[in-house]
Amino acid sequence: MSSKKIVVIGAGVAGLTSALLLARKGYDVTIVAKFAPGDYDIEYTSPWAGANWMSFVKNNQQLAKYDEITYCVFQKLVKEFPEAGLWPRRCITYVREKDLAKQSDLLGGLLDAKPWFADTVENFTELDKSQIPSGYVQGIAYDSFCINVQIYLPWLQSQCFAAGITLKLYTLKHIKEACNLHSSGEPADLIVNCTGLMASKLGGVMDPKVYPGRGQTVLVRNHAPAMYNDSGTDDADDELTYIMSRPGGGSILGGCYQKGNWNPTVDPNMADRIVKRALKLCPGLERDFPLDIVRHNVGLRPGREGGPRVELETISEVGKVVHNYGAGGAGYQSSYGMAEHVVQLVDLAFA
Amino acid sequence: MSSKKIVVIGAGVAGLTSALLLARKGYDVTIVAKFAPGDYDIEYTSPWAGANWMSFVKNNQQLAKYDEITYCVFQKLVKEFPEAGLWPRRCITYVREKDLAKQSDLLGGLLDAKPWFADTVENFTELDKSQIPSGYVQGIAYDSFCINVQIYLPWLQSQCFAAGITLKLYTLKHIKEACNLHSSGEPADLIVNCTGLMASKLGGVMDPKVYPGRGQTVLVRNHAPAMYNDSGTDDADDELTYIMSRPGGGSILGGCYQKGNWNPTVDPNMADRIVKRALKLCPGLERDFPLDIVRHNVGLRPGREGGPRVELETISEVGKVVHNYGAGGAGYQSSYGMAEHVVQLVDLAFA
Amino acid sequence: MSSKKIVVIGAGVAGLTSALLLARKGYDVTIVAKFAPGDYDIEYTSPWAGANWMSFVKNNQQLAKYDEITYCVFQKLVKEFPEAGLWPRRCITYVREKDLAKQSDLLGGLLDAKPWFADTVENFTELDKSQIPSGYVQGIAYDSFCINVQIYLPWLQSQCFAAGITLKLYTLKHIKEACNLHSSGEPADLIVNCTGLMASKLGGVMDPKVYPGRGQTVLVRNHAPAMYNDSGTDDADDELTYIMSRPGGGSILGGCYQKGNWNPTVDPNMADRIVKRALKLCPGLERDFPLDIVRHNVGLRPGREGGPRVELETISEVGKVVHNYGAGGAGYQSSYGMAEHVVQLVDLAFA
Amino acid sequence: MSSKKIVVIGAGVAGLTSALLLARKGYDVTIVAKFAPGDYDIEYTSPWAGANWMSFVKNNQQLAKYDEITYCVFQKLVKEFPEAGLWPRRCITYVREKDLAKQSDLLGGLLDAKPWFADTVENFTELDKSQIPSGYVQGIAYDSFCINVQIYLPWLQSQCFAAGITLKLYTLKHIKEACNLHSSGEPADLIVNCTGLMASKLGGVMDPKVYPGRGQTVLVRNHAPAMYNDSGTDDADDELTYIMSRPGGGSILGGCYQKGNWNPTVDPNMADRIVKRALKLCPGLERDFPLDIVRHNVGLRPGREGGPRVELETISEVGKVVHNYGAGGAGYQSSYGMAEHVVQLVDLAFA
Repeated sequence: MSSKKIVVIGAGVAGLTSALLLARKGYDVTIVAKFAPGDYDIEYTSPWAGANWMSFVKNNQQLAKYDEITYCVFQKLVKEFPEAGLWPRRCITYVREKDLAKQSDLLGGLLDAKPWFADTVENFTELDKSQIPSGYVQGIAYDSFCINVQIYLPWLQSQCFAAGITLKLYTLKHIKEACNLHSSGEPADLIVNCTGLMASKLGGVMDPKVYPGRGQTVLVRNHAPAMYNDSGTDDADDELTYIMSRPGGGSILGGCYQKGNWNPTVDPNMADRIVKRALKLCPGLERDFPLDIVRHNVGLRPGREGGPRVELETISEVGKVVHNYGAGGAGYQSSYGMAEHVVQLVDLAFA
Repeated sequence: MSSKKIVVIGAGVAGLTSALLLARKGYDVTIVAKFAPGDYDIEYTSPWAGANWMSFVKNNQQLAKYDEITYCVFQKLVKEFPEAGLWPRRCITYVREKDLAKQSDLLGGLLDAKPWFADTVENFTELDKSQIPSGYVQGIAYDSFCINVQIYLPWLQSQCFAAGITLKLYTLKHIKEACNLHSSGEPADLIVNCTGLMASKLGGVMDPKVYPGRGQTVLVRNHAPAMYNDSGTDDADDELTYIMSRPGGGSILGGCYQKGNWNPTVDPNMADRIVKRALKLCPGLERDFPLDIVRHNVGLRPGREGGPRVELETISEVGKVVHNYGAGGAGYQSSYGMAEHVVQLVDLAFA
Repeated sequence: MSSKKIVVIGAGVAGLTSALLLARKGYDVTIVAKFAPGDYDIEYTSPWAGANWMSFVKNNQQLAKYDEITYCVFQKLVKEFPEAGLWPRRCITYVREKDLAKQSDLLGGLLDAKPWFADTVENFTELDKSQIPSGYVQGIAYDSFCINVQIYLPWLQSQCFAAGITLKLYTLKHIKEACNLHSSGEPADLIVNCTGLMASKLGGVMDPKVYPGRGQTVLVRNHAPAMYNDSGTDDADDELTYIMSRPGGGSILGGCYQKGNWNPTVDPNMADRIVKRALKLCPGLERDFPLDIVRHNVGLRPGREGGPRVELETISEVGKVVHNYGAGGAGYQSSYGMAEHVVQLVDLAFA
Repeated sequence: MSSKKIVVIGAGVAGLTSALLLARKGYDVTIVAKFAPGDYDIEYTSPWAGANWMSFVKNNQQLAKYDEITYCVFQKLVKEFPEAGLWPRRCITYVREKDLAKQSDLLGGLLDAKPWFADTVENFTELDKSQIPSGYVQGIAYDSFCINVQIYLPWLQSQCFAAGITLKLYTLKHIKEACNLHSSGEPADLIVNCTGLMASKLGGVMDPKVYPGRGQTVLVRNHAPAMYNDSGTDDADDELTYIMSRPGGGSILGGCYQKGNWNPTVDPNMADRIVKRALKLCPGLERDFPLDIVRHNVGLRPGREGGPRVELETISEVGKVVHNYGAGGAGYQSSYGMAEHVVQLVDLAFA
C-alpha cells in the first residue's frame, strides 16, 4: 500500500516542522515554498526571528499545550543535537508596577508571578527583591532555550532532506496549484497550509484575520549571560525590551510588536532606543568589548485575530487542507505542538 | 598532555573547513569571526557563492591537488550526508572557437579539451559535434557536485559545534588580538588566518596582493537538469555564463569576474544579460514555469596575485600563523585540499 | 493686521503646492514634514512618482475640475519655467477590445474614446485604425506634460523658500503637535493636513479609508519619443503598461496598481514583465542604445475609498484643519486644483 | 559663426558647474551622464555630500584660489537665490592639543590658528579660551555657507536647462564615445571630463591616481545653531566629527575619511560613534526634540594622489579633453574655482 501524498506549503519553521513530523509518520511529503532557509525576504518571517522559548500564553489550554509539547521536544533536541543551534539558557523576566495593572493581550502571561508553565519548565523561581533591578517589582527565572535561527532553520531543512522530503521552490498564486506539485508527479492527497502572513494573500485562503506584528531587532556580536526581558518601556506602548543570547555567538536585542504595520525598513530611531534599553537591562553585554552591531532586522510576525489556525478544511477545487498558521510571535516555541496537531488532523483526514 | 590551542580567524568555507579538520586532529580550536553562516555582508564572501566543483586549474600541480582532494571528499560527503546541501550533478562545459585562441588566466583549464582532471572525475566525456549546441566547437561533461551554500555553510558550522569548537563573534582590527580570544582563556599557541578578501585590510597582514573578483548572479526558482557553463560571451570580456542546479531547489545563473571591482550593488543591466544568456544556454530552465527570480546576488571573490596563500609564518607580537586565503573563485572546490594543507603546516609548526 | 499662521503638514507634491498657493495669498506658512525633497522613503510617495498629466477621471466633476485646473497651470509653467522639470509631451493611449467591456475603477476614463478632457487639452485626436498597433481597437492622442519629479519636487520646494516659507523636519505622532510648530513661535491658526498615505497612521486623523496603491517602475536612460500607455495586460489584472519620457533625460516604464499592498521591495519578476511590455509598446526606446536601466522604483500611491479628501474640519485639541490627501495616482495632475480648493477652504475658515 | 560644441561628461557638482559656466560663455554644451540629480548611486558622489565651505587647503596657492573664488560666488548666490539651497552659516573649528603636533594631509589647514583664508572670509575670529570647550586648545570661527545638496544639485541642473543645455543619460565605457553624443548631432569639438571617482574606470582615462575617500554621515531632523567640526577623535585615526546645519531643515552629522575604502554599505557601529560625538560637540542639537534620524549615508569622495586634475590634454581618437576631477572632499567648496579654470582651458584650446 503506497503512502499518502502530502504537499506542505511553506518552508518556515511551521512548514518544515510539520513536514518532518509527517514524513516520520510515513507520509510521502513534498514541500512547496516561495522561500527557503538562507533566503531573507519580508514575506518570509522565520529567518528574522530571535528566537527562544518564552511562553506568553494566558488562559488558553490549547496554546499552552503547544508550548509545553515544544518545551519537551527542545529538552531532547538540546541533548541529542548540539549542532542544531538550540541551546539551554536561563530566561529572566522583570515586571514594572505600572504594567501589572494593564490588561495586555501583547504581554499575556508574561505579567504573571506564577505563570501556567511554572511546573512545566525546569528550575522555575520567583525572584526576591534583592534579585530584581530597581524599577521593577516582580521577577521570575527558569531554564529555557535560545535558538539561533540561522543555524536551526537550515538544520531543520536538512533533517527534512535526510527524511526523504523533496523541496520545490515555486510561487503559488492559488492554493489549488499545490495539488499538482507533489514530487511523485501524482496529485496530492492533502495539502498542509503553512503560509504564515501570506495566508492573507494566497488565492483560495485569503484569511482576513491575519495581520502583521512588526518586530525590529539588533543583532550584536556581544554575549549576554542569560535571556532577559521586561514588561514594558516608557518609549512607546508597542515597544518591548528583550535580549536573547544566541547559540553560536552574538545576542539579539529587541524589540517591538507593531500590529498592522507592514513596513520592512529599519527605523533608525527605534534601533537606537532598543540598544539603549538593552544596555540598561543588561550592562554585562559590554563586558568583553563595546557594543558591536552586526545588523538591524525587521520581521513581520504572522498574527491572527482569535489566535492560530490549526484546522482541517475541505476547499473546492483543492480538496482536504490542514491549515497551520497564525502563531504570531510564538512560531518557534509552539512549533512542535502545532505540528503534532497537524499530524493528528492529517491522520484523521485519512481515517 | 593538553592539546594545542588554536584560533582560526574567519567563518567562511576556508575557516570552517580548516577548524573542523584541526579539531578532528585533536587540536583545541576556537573560531573568531566578524560574520558567521546566516549573515550576508559584502566582506563575507562564502554565502554569496554558487557553488560547485568545476576546476579551472591549469599547469599548477599544487592547485590541482587541492581540487582533487576536495573532489574525493565530496564523493564521500554526498553519500554519507544527504542533508549537507551537497548533491551530485553532471557538469557540462562548451567552448567557443574564438575563446580557444585566447590565453586566459580567468578561464584557465576550462578551455582544455582534456583538462587535468579528466582521469580524476567520474564519467568524463569529450562531447562530439552532435552533442554541442551551435556556436560552440568543443565540449566536455563529467560527474561533479553542486553545493547549496545556504545549507552547506550552516551544516559545516554545525559540524564544528558537534566537534566541540567554540565560535566567537568579534571584529578584529589587528591579527594580534586573536591571540587572547581562545575560549580557554589562555593564550593561543597558533593562529590560522582565513580572512579571505579582508586579508588586505587586517592589521598585521594587509596583503597587497589580495584583490576582489566581483561576481554577480541571479537565484531563480527554476530547475536546471545539469550544470552548464561556457567559455565566453560577446557582452563583455569579464562576463561569463554558468548555471548551477542547486540541491534543495532553484538554480544559480551567472555571472562575471570583475577584477578589482569592489561594488556590492547589483548592476540591473548585467542582471538582464545574465538571464538572457542563461535561457539561451539552457532553455530547459523554463520547462515547468516561466523564469521566476528569487533575488540578485553580488559577492567579491578573494583573489590574490600569484594564487592562494597557504603558508606558515611567524609574525612578531603574534607568533606562529598559518595563512589560508586567496582562493578566488575556487573557495569551495579547493576547501578540503587547502584545509588539509593547513593541518600539515600546523602539525609542522608544533613538530 | 498680521497674517494668519498656517502649518502645512507634509512636503509631498500636495503639501508643497498647497503651501505655495497659501503663501502667495498672504498667509504665513510653515511646512512641517517628516521627509522633504531629496529623501527616498516608502512613507513619502511623491519622489517615487512618474509623473505626468493623464487624467483617468470618469463621471466626477470635482475630480475633473482638479485635473483641468492643473492642466492650465502646467501650460503656463512650461512656458515660464523651463527649469522646473515639467515639459510638454504627446500622450497616447491604446485600448484593447477585452478591456472595453470592463467596468474598471482603476482605468476609469482611460477607456473612453472621447474622455471628459477632449475639449480641455490641446490637439486631442481620436486615432484611426492605421495609427493603432495590432492588438488594440481604439486610441487617442493629445498634448500633455511629463514631469521629472527629481527636478520638479525640489523646484517646488525652492519656490516655497523664495516665497518666504519655512520648512521644519519633524516626526509627528499626533496632528495636535503641529499647532506648536509654526516658525513664528506662536500657535498656528489653522493646520493643513497633506500627509498622504500616512493619514492612515497619524494620531487624531487615522483615516481608515486610506490604502496604498502599490506602483513599481523602471527608470531607464533611454529616450521615448512620446508618452504611451495601454488599457491592460495579460500578465495580471493589477498590472499596467505605461511609458513616460522624462524632461532632463530618461524614461519611466510602468507599472502596476496593487491595492492594499504595502511591500516596498522591488519584485524582480514584475520588473522583467514591465521591461518586456514597454519594449513591445515602444520599440523606439532602443533606437539609440540597448535598454539601460538606472534603477527600479516602488511607491505607494495614497488611495482612499470614496476619493480624495479636501475638507475643512474642526478637531478637538487641534482646532481648524483643512485636509488634502488621498489623490491616489493623480497626485501631480490634480495638485493645483486640489491646492486651490485648499485655499478656498482656508479663506472660508477665516471669513 | 556657430559656437563650439562641447560635451561635458558627468552631472555631479563639477560637471554641472563647468557646463553652466561654459554655456554662459557662449559654448554649445551637452551634458552626458550616467546619473543625474535625484539619483543615488555609489558611483555618483555629489548627492551624498554634506556639504559646506570649510577649506582645508594648506600651502597650495592653486587650491586656495579655487576655494576663494567659490567663496566669493557663494556670497553672491546666497543673496540672489534664496531658493538655491545655499545659506549662510557660522563655521566653528576646535583643535585638540594632540592633533596640533600631527602632520596631517587629511586635516591640512584645519589645524591652523590663522589659516590662509583668515582674510578672505568674513568675520574671522580666533576664539579665546573661554569660547573653547574643554578638551580643545584652539578654535576659530568665521562666516561661511552650508549647502543642502538635495536642493542645490537639482537647482544647478535647472540653471543648466534654463541656459539651454541638454542633458543625456548615457553609460560610457570609453571617453571617445562622448564625441558623438552632442545634442546637435555633430561631432563634439571638445570634451570636458568631470567623471570624479569613475575617472579611475573610464576607458581612455583610467587614472590610477584616483582613489575613494569613504565618508559616512547621519542626516537628522534636528537643527544645529551653527556648523561645528573638530580636529580629531579618539575613536579612530580616519574618523572626524563635523556638524552641518542644512538650509531647508535638518543637520548632517559626520564622519570619516577612509582612504581606499570602496564599501558603500553603512557601518552601524560607526553610525553610533558619529551620533555620540556629535551630541557631545553640540548638545544644542537636542534642544527642540530628541535626536531624530532620517537616514544614514555613505559617499566616496573622489580623491587623487597629487591633488585634483584640471588640465587640457589631447587624447587620440578623442581629440581635445579638459579634465576636471579629483577634488576629494572639496567638490562643492572648490566648484566655481575649478569650473572657471575649465573655462580658461577651453578658451585656450580654441584660441
